Amino acid sequence: MSISEIQTRRVFEESAPLVLSSSETLAPIDVAYQSMGTISPKKDNVILLCHALTGDSQFAGTRDDGSPGWWNNLVGPGKAIDTDRYFVICPAVLGTCHGSTGPASLNPKTGSAYARDFPMITIEDMVRCQQELLRQLGITKLYAVIGGSMGGMQALSWAALFPDMVQRCIPIASTAQVSPLAIAFDAVARQAILSVDSPGCEGLSTARMLGHITYLSDVLMDHRFGRSLQDREDYSYTFDSDFQVESYLNYKGRQFAERFDEATYLYLTRAVSYFDMEKEYGSLQAAFEKSTARFLVISIRSDWLYTPEQSKQLVHSLMKLNKNVSYIDIDSHYGHDSFLIDNRALEESLYVFLESRSHVT
Amino acid sequence: MSISEIQTRRVFEESAPLVLSSSETLAPIDVAYQSMGTISPKKDNVILLCHALTGDSQFAGTRDDGSPGWWNNLVGPGKAIDTDRYFVICPAVLGTCHGSTGPASLNPKTGSAYARDFPMITIEDMVRCQQELLRQLGITKLYAVIGGSMGGMQALSWAALFPDMVQRCIPIASTAQVSPLAIAFDAVARQAILSVDSPGCEGLSTARMLGHITYLSDVLMDHRFGRSLQDREDYSYTFDSDFQVESYLNYKGRQFAERFDEATYLYLTRAVSYFDMEKEYGSLQAAFEKSTARFLVISIRSDWLYTPEQSKQLVHSLMKLNKNVSYIDIDSHYGHDSFLIDNRALEESLYVFLESRSHVT
Repeated sequence: MSISEIQTRRVFEESAPLVLSSSETLAPIDVAYQSMGTISPKKDNVILLCHALTGDSQFAGTRDDGSPGWWNNLVGPGKAIDTDRYFVICPAVLGTCHGSTGPASLNPKTGSAYARDFPMITIEDMVRCQQELLRQLGITKLYAVIGGSMGGMQALSWAALFPDMVQRCIPIASTAQVSPLAIAFDAVARQAILSVDSPGCEGLSTARMLGHITYLSDVLMDHRFGRSLQDREDYSYTFDSDFQVESYLNYKGRQFAERFDEATYLYLTRAVSYFDMEKEYGSLQAAFEKSTARFLVISIRSDWLYTPEQSKQLVHSLMKLNKNVSYIDIDSHYGHDSFLIDNRALEESLYVFLESRSHVT
Repeated sequence: MSISEIQTRRVFEESAPLVLSSSETLAPIDVAYQSMGTISPKKDNVILLCHALTGDSQFAGTRDDGSPGWWNNLVGPGKAIDTDRYFVICPAVLGTCHGSTGPASLNPKTGSAYARDFPMITIEDMVRCQQELLRQLGITKLYAVIGGSMGGMQALSWAALFPDMVQRCIPIASTAQVSPLAIAFDAVARQAILSVDSPGCEGLSTARMLGHITYLSDVLMDHRFGRSLQDREDYSYTFDSDFQVESYLNYKGRQFAERFDEATYLYLTRAVSYFDMEKEYGSLQAAFEKSTARFLVISIRSDWLYTPEQSKQLVHSLMKLNKNVSYIDIDSHYGHDSFLIDNRALEESLYVFLESRSHVT
């Protein structure tokens, strides 16, 4: 299967640090990444995967705990993203706690974790680190860059920041400009973390519960949970988790808080809130003006975090620029997280779009 | 204007306590209420107003801080709910911190506030206290019972619990069965409160920020805030409230935490989560079987907390029972809280429905 172990590479040394969007500098920066497939002699078959908020570089294979990589269902030999043809690489983003440099990393100046001393980062900063990694690996063209949610924001930034490198750009369940509703939810999530003084993971658990609600749809909640009670016949008349939906969210929150870093959650949600290509480039037109990529914009019908409406606005902007843009709205009632779930329409549109040769340069 | 000061009446003495839905007993119970208008000799012009989660008995007139009562725009002489014709009374619900007995009240057994020793209460318990108040005031018929959000749940419970008393029932932006989505949001809100050990109001502030998001619509958020920054030209690259929407929610959260009681918020949201007329009565048909009321069900187009879909389901159930039911979906983009805002369609439908004489007994 030619699937790699997770590797780590130093992409910025202290002698030449990365200048962040905030104008601060950061070094050293390490990037962890996984790859699958074989790179062609011309290095013209590289697909970059960009992961979502709490994702990591492990898109394929099996984790230590036995669970599969986050896109194992879509990426592999003979799958929608076919590793018999493509060399697929996925770096953990700058700022995460999964191997790349982030708030959970050791600050060489203090010898302890950066935590809230980490500088603020943006989606663009993440992309710059990815580009430096690829440059060091001798990769100068991307057959495609693909990502869901925060990963889609990275994909769009790639097309804007490195227009000559990106041949195909596929943002899924994403947006070019994060909405006030999404900003508001993340502000509450951070407040839940920041208001808990004591060490522990209560605040992060609350934040994740809230995030999780926004990843589901109300229809899915009705179908999956309804008002069913958890292991009881009647209300407890206490503040315990009487309802299945409460119990589920509590479990998800606690489980997440055990594996994720609190400061990391603060930084990554902030990077998402800051994502606004209109602000960054003046307009969406200006952002994508120089891009020669073909775009496949994919939205999820029941996604109320980054809505189909937002994807359509992006498509309209790209059409106005006379870009080659396809759009599909996936009819799933699983909500925002649908892109992580087996979905035939998603598989097919990725496969067809990637295999079509019309634009290969 | 014959508007009363807030009055308080003891409705349950320790010698004869209220048996709650949970089977626990509670006494003493005081109920604070405000009234406006003149009761007719036959006492056949009484309209009961039921307030929402964080509301109180002060529906009219001016508060100490100069702000108007919560339905001052709709209730008064010559207004939609015309106090030249009707005697309007609004009790503060059992469990709130606005004059009626609740978690913030003194527990006579300990001499300090009940706080989390208060027994769990339900919407039905609130209604039983209101009914006892009215009984003591010699009121045996309600020309109408009207309420928005949690107030609408009380109005519906009135029609089910006291079918002979209610002539008109008007639930607004409400539901007969709280959805898993609404349960989920309230579970997160309570978790935010319960996870903050230290005294202070950080948890309550977070909870309110979240609640506030669910009272607005995404369209309203786009229109009112967009991605505008608060008193700055560019991002701060900190966790401060850079965005207007963040600043607004923070302000609302802090302001609320100063005037409201933390334990009260826990209890009232739990009462809402527990509200389920299907569970309570076996079915909606069984719930309303004996009611002779005319119903006016009002939903708000942009309300995603208690959706128009839920109101329509209620209307269908009432139609199946051959009840006299009218329905209006108000085309407002202000979200759930639209019923508290000046709205001509709401005013007119209330006025017309109340004035129509066809069914007066």
